Amino acid sequence: MSGNPLRFWHHHVGVSVPELDAAIGWYCKVLGFELQRRFPIEAIPAQVAILRNGPLHVELFEVPQAAAASPERGIPDRDVHTHGNKHVAFTVENLTELVEELRRRGADIVWHRQFEFGANAFIRDNSGNLIEFIQGPAPRESFGTL
Amino acid sequence: MSGNPLRFWHHHVGVSVPELDAAIGWYCKVLGFELQRRFPIEAIPAQVAILRNGPLHVELFEVPQAAAASPERGIPDRDVHTHGNKHVAFTVENLTELVEELRRRGADIVWHRQFEFGANAFIRDNSGNLIEFIQGPAPRESFGTL
Repeated sequence: MSGNPLRFWHHHVGVSVPELDAAIGWYCKVLGFELQRRFPIEAIPAQVAILRNGPLHVELFEVPQAAAASPERGIPDRDVHTHGNKHVAFTVENLTELVEELRRRGADIVWHRQFEFGANAFIRDNSGNLIEFIQGPAPRESFGTL
Repeated sequence: MSGNPLRFWHHHVGVSVPELDAAIGWYCKVLGFELQRRFPIEAIPAQVAILRNGPLHVELFEVPQAAAASPERGIPDRDVHTHGNKHVAFTVENLTELVEELRRRGADIVWHRQFEFGANAFIRDNSGNLIEFIQGPAPRESFGTL
């Protein structure tokens, strides 16, 4: 074995959205992502877009006739009342500054508040999907190559 | 403004699971995470565990009487037929080696295959939640501090 096979890095979160162009527009305008490429996946079938912001990626899927998400998926404390993969969370060094900037950019801010271990904010993308931001330092410990 | 407020890093993915202890065991045994802390969130209410593997985190929620996930959430090409946040994906430098190691550790391998842009694998955690791995280099471009 050539090293630690369990050394891996975050690549992306997948999000199924009702309108690909609108979602690309929102992630670019509000969260600073750029479109990296678009392609179809015939087996789904879906139109897919990969967006990038530094080392972060989001993979957006538009699937014809996809079912709407349950409204509780847009409410942090309700979403986890159904099992499964839920929100993705990012660390930011200055959460207050980020939330002010996201508000200026028209984001739907669910909350921005202190909790026992620090401060966090939840926002919704233009399709109602939750995204969390946590006040904290940039990661100091990595696997090495970043 | 003291810098780019849209500079943020991946922190975690949230996953709602039926049995917290079993899920902690799986993420530690199979994916090399370690338990960082456990605490309740009374407002949900939930028992929560934060797991860590290098710079990566997973936040597990156990919510009493939570609803089961739809079976299609465990099938990559079906999961995106309902809108919402879906799988999280990680980059790994040697996907074949990782998949072999995960198989030895008892992971439920959905597929490991070539696709147009490279190779990927989907696995399911012990609760049936999808996790994707993509063959690729460690991230070369970051925001700087990693």
